[in-house]
Amino acid sequence: MTLLSAPATRRIGLLTSGGDCPGLNAVIRSAHIRATRAHGAELVGFRNGWRGILDEDLVAIDDRFVEGIGGRGGTVLGSSRTNPLEGGSTADVTAVLERHGIDGLIAVGGEGSLSAAKTLADGGVPIVGVPKTIDNDLGGTDYTFGFDTAVQIATDAMDRLLTTGESHGRCMVAEVMGRNAGWIALNSGIAVGAHGILVPEHPASLETIVGWVRSARDRGRGPLIVVAEGFGLPDGQLSVRGHEASGRPRLGGIGEALAPMIERATGVETRAATLGHIQRGGTPSAYDRVLASRFGSNAVDAVIEQKWGSMVSLRGTDIVTVPLAMALAGLKLVSTQRYERAAYCFG
Amino acid sequence: MTLLSAPATRRIGLLTSGGDCPGLNAVIRSAHIRATRAHGAELVGFRNGWRGILDEDLVAIDDRFVEGIGGRGGTVLGSSRTNPLEGGSTADVTAVLERHGIDGLIAVGGEGSLSAAKTLADGGVPIVGVPKTIDNDLGGTDYTFGFDTAVQIATDAMDRLLTTGESHGRCMVAEVMGRNAGWIALNSGIAVGAHGILVPEHPASLETIVGWVRSARDRGRGPLIVVAEGFGLPDGQLSVRGHEASGRPRLGGIGEALAPMIERATGVETRAATLGHIQRGGTPSAYDRVLASRFGSNAVDAVIEQKWGSMVSLRGTDIVTVPLAMALAGLKLVSTQRYERAAYCFG
Amino acid sequence: MTLLSAPATRRIGLLTSGGDCPGLNAVIRSAHIRATRAHGAELVGFRNGWRGILDEDLVAIDDRFVEGIGGRGGTVLGSSRTNPLEGGSTADVTAVLERHGIDGLIAVGGEGSLSAAKTLADGGVPIVGVPKTIDNDLGGTDYTFGFDTAVQIATDAMDRLLTTGESHGRCMVAEVMGRNAGWIALNSGIAVGAHGILVPEHPASLETIVGWVRSARDRGRGPLIVVAEGFGLPDGQLSVRGHEASGRPRLGGIGEALAPMIERATGVETRAATLGHIQRGGTPSAYDRVLASRFGSNAVDAVIEQKWGSMVSLRGTDIVTVPLAMALAGLKLVSTQRYERAAYCFG
Amino acid sequence: MTLLSAPATRRIGLLTSGGDCPGLNAVIRSAHIRATRAHGAELVGFRNGWRGILDEDLVAIDDRFVEGIGGRGGTVLGSSRTNPLEGGSTADVTAVLERHGIDGLIAVGGEGSLSAAKTLADGGVPIVGVPKTIDNDLGGTDYTFGFDTAVQIATDAMDRLLTTGESHGRCMVAEVMGRNAGWIALNSGIAVGAHGILVPEHPASLETIVGWVRSARDRGRGPLIVVAEGFGLPDGQLSVRGHEASGRPRLGGIGEALAPMIERATGVETRAATLGHIQRGGTPSAYDRVLASRFGSNAVDAVIEQKWGSMVSLRGTDIVTVPLAMALAGLKLVSTQRYERAAYCFG
Repeated sequence: MTLLSAPATRRIGLLTSGGDCPGLNAVIRSAHIRATRAHGAELVGFRNGWRGILDEDLVAIDDRFVEGIGGRGGTVLGSSRTNPLEGGSTADVTAVLERHGIDGLIAVGGEGSLSAAKTLADGGVPIVGVPKTIDNDLGGTDYTFGFDTAVQIATDAMDRLLTTGESHGRCMVAEVMGRNAGWIALNSGIAVGAHGILVPEHPASLETIVGWVRSARDRGRGPLIVVAEGFGLPDGQLSVRGHEASGRPRLGGIGEALAPMIERATGVETRAATLGHIQRGGTPSAYDRVLASRFGSNAVDAVIEQKWGSMVSLRGTDIVTVPLAMALAGLKLVSTQRYERAAYCFG
Repeated sequence: MTLLSAPATRRIGLLTSGGDCPGLNAVIRSAHIRATRAHGAELVGFRNGWRGILDEDLVAIDDRFVEGIGGRGGTVLGSSRTNPLEGGSTADVTAVLERHGIDGLIAVGGEGSLSAAKTLADGGVPIVGVPKTIDNDLGGTDYTFGFDTAVQIATDAMDRLLTTGESHGRCMVAEVMGRNAGWIALNSGIAVGAHGILVPEHPASLETIVGWVRSARDRGRGPLIVVAEGFGLPDGQLSVRGHEASGRPRLGGIGEALAPMIERATGVETRAATLGHIQRGGTPSAYDRVLASRFGSNAVDAVIEQKWGSMVSLRGTDIVTVPLAMALAGLKLVSTQRYERAAYCFG
Repeated sequence: MTLLSAPATRRIGLLTSGGDCPGLNAVIRSAHIRATRAHGAELVGFRNGWRGILDEDLVAIDDRFVEGIGGRGGTVLGSSRTNPLEGGSTADVTAVLERHGIDGLIAVGGEGSLSAAKTLADGGVPIVGVPKTIDNDLGGTDYTFGFDTAVQIATDAMDRLLTTGESHGRCMVAEVMGRNAGWIALNSGIAVGAHGILVPEHPASLETIVGWVRSARDRGRGPLIVVAEGFGLPDGQLSVRGHEASGRPRLGGIGEALAPMIERATGVETRAATLGHIQRGGTPSAYDRVLASRFGSNAVDAVIEQKWGSMVSLRGTDIVTVPLAMALAGLKLVSTQRYERAAYCFG
Repeated sequence: MTLLSAPATRRIGLLTSGGDCPGLNAVIRSAHIRATRAHGAELVGFRNGWRGILDEDLVAIDDRFVEGIGGRGGTVLGSSRTNPLEGGSTADVTAVLERHGIDGLIAVGGEGSLSAAKTLADGGVPIVGVPKTIDNDLGGTDYTFGFDTAVQIATDAMDRLLTTGESHGRCMVAEVMGRNAGWIALNSGIAVGAHGILVPEHPASLETIVGWVRSARDRGRGPLIVVAEGFGLPDGQLSVRGHEASGRPRLGGIGEALAPMIERATGVETRAATLGHIQRGGTPSAYDRVLASRFGSNAVDAVIEQKWGSMVSLRGTDIVTVPLAMALAGLKLVSTQRYERAAYCFG
């Protein structure tokens, strides 16, 4: 490997922003190792996302700092949902970076964070992005880290629900993450062999769902339906239950709303399980550790090559850089073809 | 090993009753192997708990039936909450056993089922019990299978919650099983190093809980509180939030009720996670597979020895038999000493 | 989805060949569901790979046959290393298929099996391939199922080795699968943060390895070296130890040969762990279940579309079909760039 | 809880000695919390076992030191196999403790370490022991931490081997830990449903083993034999293979010696898997974390109560203290009754 312009770039900043995601620490660790070993540069971390920029809250990253963190969940740098353009300005960010001698900034974050990064980059701030979304709904990259772990956790949990459902002839409704895109529901549903998969992108009536449940029960199975949190029944169907009327979405997501509807329509005892926060914490899967490590390592190269306004991205088996705009051009949704193959095959 | 009265006992029945529990299949498997290999006897299963008795719904159990089931969750015989003394009588049960040439019946179940088994045994039905409770609250035995698996699942889930809480400086409230006894909360709380453990047996005021959360936060931790589903705040404290008033306990257990109270009192962002049904299904832990296998094997011996009205029990490292009455003499609760050591140590 | 020529194709055969691989059962299950639900066709299985063709050993596959198998390791159809062109001929295979009314055959297998499939297809046999290799060294597809599971198992095992190594200041040498290609070593090594990665494709001298071990030890770590089973030291270095001279490769793979060499050269106590067969059995990861399910489903479509001589393949996020020849054009190896980035970053 | 003589005891030392064991960190953590929270005392650690005593290598333990360590494998204090009575004397140890104002010492270790602890205690050194053995062969306590984790790891690994064996009709021989006592083989063998269990305490001829393998194969299973590393065939049988003659026990344990013998005698293809070091590292099971936490907490109480020469012990569900001599009175072996029930039932 050729050392690229090491003399010109001495100091790289990094921050992790938005909801935590298994793999963030692997990004930090591998960025440090790449910066120091391959480029003779130094990595410094900003604490708690963009807030660390605004507060000038920095931490030096050395070998000891990253020891053994690659396999741990969360982010040792902390995170926040601070928007740098609300509490500050492009000039403020530039000033902070200059004051601390930082030649380039790696921003690891989701749609909001990358959108801010693009605005900053357009304004001349030397930024490179690393995409982060557990829901797998960011454009411009095949996958991001955290998603594989979330699918695995949901699959493990549903493997457990299946045996309970079977023992009692019960229907289980498992609610997984996915506000706008149903990738976690789709993949965990395929993996576990769910009898029905419900995603935000594709409508399904109560009658369809009831048909899935009856079909599984008639084959002697305890039916399992996986539903993304962002799924909604067609107009009118859910309001029958007064779900929306409750005004308390946290105390009764779509899974808990569907369960009694299914039970009433089919006569099959039905229980809901909301997987919630356990999907996003803890030890990342090996897949996510590898992907996050590659992102971190390549993001450092992008900084060295001064590819400002770009982000690292997985394309097939390669890590490439693409313009930040590609991540922001629209959510990556489950296509009709992908959904129908799964729903048709496993429903 | 001496073959005991094999000629006198040719056919042993077995049923699994009540909520499913990891390890039931290991009981079935090892009972079959012990019956056939050690005693030259035969094991038959009744489907769906006591309902299988009332409906005379039997299945022959052979080597193929038990192949590879030891590591699977649920029960291949199915289960139900049917009470044999509501749908039938002692005479009915006796008649069914006689009609099918069954010399002794192994009933695997919880408090309700063992209570029925005792009444039947008192009335002359040849029954031996195997205790089953995920909550670990049955008397007469050190532990039962399923509990270790539930504690492990809760621990794994909370390990994940901890990293999310830390990344965001958030407080997480994890609600685990335990209606009357807090054993799962106690042990998983100790295992994960929770900052507070709440169990049904021991009161804790909101002020105490808030103190735990503040103390953890002041040490720079994302606080984690584990609460058994049966825990309640002292009179008056919970009603402030209108929790009881909601009349919908399933859409908001104690964890979801506590979270906003903690957040308001401490200013620390707080989220609830209800582990629910994933605690009781799926692959049993090795510990539970061993305990369940020993229970099944020894229950067959108890039948051969005609120890009617007894149940198998773990005492230290030994499997013994005790009168069924011992399991019914009162719930096994977390003692003040055990609770205070854990709360004091880890709070 | 349009039903394609369902009347013309009524019966599809499937066989699994070569070493077992987590995900085979998910292929079988999803091929059955796609065949019956989407195409009105029927799936039959040949037992024990190509031997089932030669022996005309078929089994009907129905809903019950595939119930719950998606998450289980191994293959319910059995496997063998039989080569259909050694025990039989193209005409024999054609005759068997015709005799049983099979319109197309899905062959799931590795390089040997796909090579036979290509010869048969060239001879007019209606065959579609599904690539299978735990080592990830088949060309023509980004990934195959089984690889992700193996990397995860190796990562989990090495996470365990790391803590033992650290407690004792010991160096651990973990030998993983990979005869010709070092993908498992590369990815598990990145995931676990190994201090050195050794693959068959890239030479590394004992001096290099010793440097890695010393560097890790000097930073206070228990060094961890991961080595693919097919790695060899440069000429002369290994023979010093008489490794090759032993003539008993199974009682002392490369890991066990390296350990004492490292210990002698560094003075650091060194132990080898050979992961062996546990890398290929058991529950597949969610990733592998999804990929295998997609392969199975799409292979059925390829049969319906009569794409004889093709195989299903992962390209980015899409499943496509490619000529079988693409899988056979040469092993997919770890590139110098990929290796150096990992070795440089983590060594 | 009553604070016991806190003024008299201000400083407690702790060391971890011998092979590492999952749960050591939970002992350290809970000892610190108990000492500081319940007794107003202070815990200091000696690094690398008894060597830390001889070298006066101490580390202060505070809240930050124990943060999040309970779930990690290994020991943050390091370990060694140093014998304090070889490198030093009772007077030396006493002098070190006095020089650092340490009122009592907690020694966590196995047979060798507890034996040294007893000699020191007999000589007036204020010592309390915590038993540590993965093999579960120490007397005086029902169980020790680490054993449950090792059994779980072995069970998980053998679950994987079973599916590989079945797919190929192969016999798998899994070698697990257990030099003198076969507890890990016994319990993991029961848990996984092994077709034969071999332990050091009980002889089994090659003919017996071959009978197990044939019986399993005749029922259509891939036979699985679990063997403790300390098992040996009767005189004469193993030497046929020249196993002992090799003089290289590490390159061919009993599992690798048995595999070809079984294959030759049965004609069933047979493979060995040696689980090795992965059994002792990594995240402890919830069971072991709880037991280790209770041991650590109660060991501090024993120091406060000046129960010198005692060790903490699990009796049923209680933690008690017993004289150190009880741990040294003889190995805890698998009884004939326990072995025969398992071998007879599952063979």
